[in-house]
Amino acid sequence: MNPTKNTPTPDDIESYLIRHRHRYRQELCDFLSIPSVSAQQEHRDDMVQAADWLAANLRGAGLIAEIHTGPGHPIVLAEWRGAGSEAPTVLIYGHYDVEPPGPVELWRTPPFEPTLREGRIYARGATDDKGQLLLHIKALEACLAVRGELPVNVILVAEGEEETGGSHLASFIEAHADRLRCSAIVVSDSAMLGPGMPALVTTLRGIVSLEIEVFGPARELHSGEYGGTVVNPAMALARILAGVHDADGRIVIPGFTDRCRDWPEAQRAELAELPFTDEAFREEAAVPVLGGEAGFTTLERRWMRPTFEIHGLVSGHTDEGTKSIIPPSALAKVSCRLVPDQNPEEIDRLVRAYVEERTPPGVRAEVRTLATAPPWRAHSADWLYAAATQATEATFGRLPLRVGGGGSIPVVTDFTRALGAPVLLLGFGLPGENPHAPNEHFELENFELGMRTTAVLLESLGRR
Amino acid sequence: MNPTKNTPTPDDIESYLIRHRHRYRQELCDFLSIPSVSAQQEHRDDMVQAADWLAANLRGAGLIAEIHTGPGHPIVLAEWRGAGSEAPTVLIYGHYDVEPPGPVELWRTPPFEPTLREGRIYARGATDDKGQLLLHIKALEACLAVRGELPVNVILVAEGEEETGGSHLASFIEAHADRLRCSAIVVSDSAMLGPGMPALVTTLRGIVSLEIEVFGPARELHSGEYGGTVVNPAMALARILAGVHDADGRIVIPGFTDRCRDWPEAQRAELAELPFTDEAFREEAAVPVLGGEAGFTTLERRWMRPTFEIHGLVSGHTDEGTKSIIPPSALAKVSCRLVPDQNPEEIDRLVRAYVEERTPPGVRAEVRTLATAPPWRAHSADWLYAAATQATEATFGRLPLRVGGGGSIPVVTDFTRALGAPVLLLGFGLPGENPHAPNEHFELENFELGMRTTAVLLESLGRR
Repeated sequence: MNPTKNTPTPDDIESYLIRHRHRYRQELCDFLSIPSVSAQQEHRDDMVQAADWLAANLRGAGLIAEIHTGPGHPIVLAEWRGAGSEAPTVLIYGHYDVEPPGPVELWRTPPFEPTLREGRIYARGATDDKGQLLLHIKALEACLAVRGELPVNVILVAEGEEETGGSHLASFIEAHADRLRCSAIVVSDSAMLGPGMPALVTTLRGIVSLEIEVFGPARELHSGEYGGTVVNPAMALARILAGVHDADGRIVIPGFTDRCRDWPEAQRAELAELPFTDEAFREEAAVPVLGGEAGFTTLERRWMRPTFEIHGLVSGHTDEGTKSIIPPSALAKVSCRLVPDQNPEEIDRLVRAYVEERTPPGVRAEVRTLATAPPWRAHSADWLYAAATQATEATFGRLPLRVGGGGSIPVVTDFTRALGAPVLLLGFGLPGENPHAPNEHFELENFELGMRTTAVLLESLGRR
Repeated sequence: MNPTKNTPTPDDIESYLIRHRHRYRQELCDFLSIPSVSAQQEHRDDMVQAADWLAANLRGAGLIAEIHTGPGHPIVLAEWRGAGSEAPTVLIYGHYDVEPPGPVELWRTPPFEPTLREGRIYARGATDDKGQLLLHIKALEACLAVRGELPVNVILVAEGEEETGGSHLASFIEAHADRLRCSAIVVSDSAMLGPGMPALVTTLRGIVSLEIEVFGPARELHSGEYGGTVVNPAMALARILAGVHDADGRIVIPGFTDRCRDWPEAQRAELAELPFTDEAFREEAAVPVLGGEAGFTTLERRWMRPTFEIHGLVSGHTDEGTKSIIPPSALAKVSCRLVPDQNPEEIDRLVRAYVEERTPPGVRAEVRTLATAPPWRAHSADWLYAAATQATEATFGRLPLRVGGGGSIPVVTDFTRALGAPVLLLGFGLPGENPHAPNEHFELENFELGMRTTAVLLESLGRR
């Protein structure tokens, strides 16, 4: 690489980005108009259409793009290898599938008719993850258009099964590990800490999703004739669930927290310094007061501590009015969020053992595992963080904040395991953009700041 | 009354009953074919049809019958007053409405196509209560046909809101108390203790039916982003419910059991002597082992102790698969069965106070009362029990067993309060006839023994 190429001079790229701003917004609208809902069979063709659209857009940007079809939704793989074998290779990951829109009547404008309002674009998938995926492509386009080349080799992988926890990408990565070999992996599928506060996610919680079903009498029993003489499976389930936490909100399933590692004191101190207030978070969550495990701050509860949450309950008579029965069964849908160094398989075993031990004679409990993902902690890769720092300083005018992530991004672990490269989780969403709720949106300013950040980041990585 | 009339000679009546057996079965089938489901608006016309059918059948038997229409389902009132003002007046109560059939695919034959099988008639309402109501009418018909008169004056009241807990009968009784004045009230809406074991119910449990709903965040929250930092309303509900009982199955809601009166030692000893085995009851309930409050037998748990049972639970995501949310709310449908001298209004207050005290900050609980009925204990009326004893000895060849009732029959209290007459609860159903479940049925032998028992009972009461 010659020194000219290495000077960070994004002005030419920036002016290109500004000139093409309206076209980029239009492209984002086009992308968001395709209802690529991976969970719903009726959108199967839309998934194909979204993958096609993406491949065409990548080709338009100057990359070589392929669509890999197989048992799941298509995987889009694009490459630009013009930087030479000496230059670093950066793998950018994103997903083109979106969550189901949910109740359409709760949307101010239809979920698949993208609408610009107050500097935001409203549509399902705007922030999660179409907007954050497209900004990378548009940055690549700008660099290639202005300079005729990129400062690094680039591989872009976009999948269509992120929202359904599909496993086809994991096997694709395994199968193409040689081709995907890279120096760093960049993922933009997360949020900043707040407006103007870019954040690097350094940990992710894992997950174990379970169904716990308790079976009682073989049929509905009249609660007058049988009430008080048989074990009510709904009550047995309530007691199993209620026993998970002690009065201080600690999970007391034996062994559950044994492997939880508190963050180092220095990092907890850094956490306490983050521009975050409980009050703002409480308002955003729309709850009267916050809750959680005693002895930890809200951010620690969110990023450093595991959870056991109930997502759904169903048993017996759920219609209007009374039906005085002892129900034959009761079901809870739950998940445990895990932190390093908890192991999903071990947690699964511990929960099963706990449920078994707490199931009274007279009923039978069944635990079904729906999905698991391990927790993740960033490997130290100072050069990668240095490049990210340089990029956000150039665009946001400040260092990125080092934060945790409360959710799970299973693909991060898949990439780490198969490719061994460090991962940079640098997102451009904002808290409250409703990624899985009605009226999802994405701040257009961050769509554009994200493009500039990517451009500078690639420049910085190219100088490595 | 002349002495001839008073001699118990049921042979002529019995032979009439036998001669008309097939027509009676056919009439029961006709009655059961009318889907008089009081809870479902779509069956409004069927309710009217059932009331009409009943009035016509009563007129055919020789009574004067009226249909009272009003805000609720029709009330059928029939009378035969030919015994004279000196003779006792017996009020017979029954209901012509039935429970919804529930999942039709669980019925071996359709719920409203009555089918004879193995000496039983299968249909919704067979035992609860159309069969038990009709047997009284057929006994009246036989007496009137054979003798030209009845040994007592008879009032028959049949309502169409028993299964929905409607309150229109209560006001009807209040409004017509003078006309309904009687010496005794006979109700057949309960079960014998087993085949060939007629039973007199001497207590009934009351009920307080409630919905407990816990409200958390204003919208679904992503359990990755918010898990561990807000109070999950489903978990709060589970903890409220789980706290109702201690480890021994005792209800520990403060004050809840203060007014529970244990049965006198003599009666508990009688209870222990009943031909009842836990094993047979366990099999009938289709559970692996029985449960309940420590320190009490199964029959005591059923008749002498109060309950807190969950009928239904619903919260958040109940469809297939995972949806990692903290739900905005969680609902439990519950009821407490009450025993003398518990008071429904007081229990309602105590449960509300308990729920409030157990609701953690961060969520809000709402308790809605759906229905209440006080517990009931038979007033001593030796002459009435003597007549019942005579009747079951003549037909079943044995004394009636004195039992409790686990369920609630609110109208019994309404009658007692308004009319002041003693109530005889003498049912001809059998345990396991699935009154509120699929494949409800009624033993034809008991349909016929019930007619004979009524005939002898009226003779005995006429001799008073």
